[in-house]
Amino acid sequence: MKARVTVSLKPGVLDPQGRAIRHALESLGFAGVGEVRVGKVIELELAPDTPRETVEEMARRLLANPVIESFRVDMADAPAEAP
Amino acid sequence: MKARVTVSLKPGVLDPQGRAIRHALESLGFAGVGEVRVGKVIELELAPDTPRETVEEMARRLLANPVIESFRVDMADAPAEAP
Repeated sequence: MKARVTVSLKPGVLDPQGRAIRHALESLGFAGVGEVRVGKVIELELAPDTPRETVEEMARRLLANPVIESFRVDMADAPAEAP
Repeated sequence: MKARVTVSLKPGVLDPQGRAIRHALESLGFAGVGEVRVGKVIELELAPDTPRETVEEMARRLLANPVIESFRVDMADAPAEAP
């Protein structure tokens, strides 16, 4: 099964990479570009039936820096929840 | 309006950062971790009604390296007015 962890800077944390992209887009002639934020996506191939909690623990312990980053976990082929 | 560009390495392109994450997860005791791939998400605040083609051009010209990376564009439409 696959899981995807999306890591983004928390609101208010300065994003120099995003700012550089914004300026580069303006230099290329793209008008009307406002704030740009850059994050990471980590796609993991995992053993079947790995619980979401395990992936969240991976994110907390390694993939994201909880001081400045937040993360979201998306599970592919997640076992269907009871309706 | 907002747009999100997700940039990922093309299949077959070596991903040393993903490999490092895989080994680090194993060292932390997480079992059953297979391939790990790392990509980027760029979230852009754009002028209203910016066409998708413009964002695709931004991705081709600046955000992704078309030799080794592919990208996907997701447009978020202007939020609906609260009733």
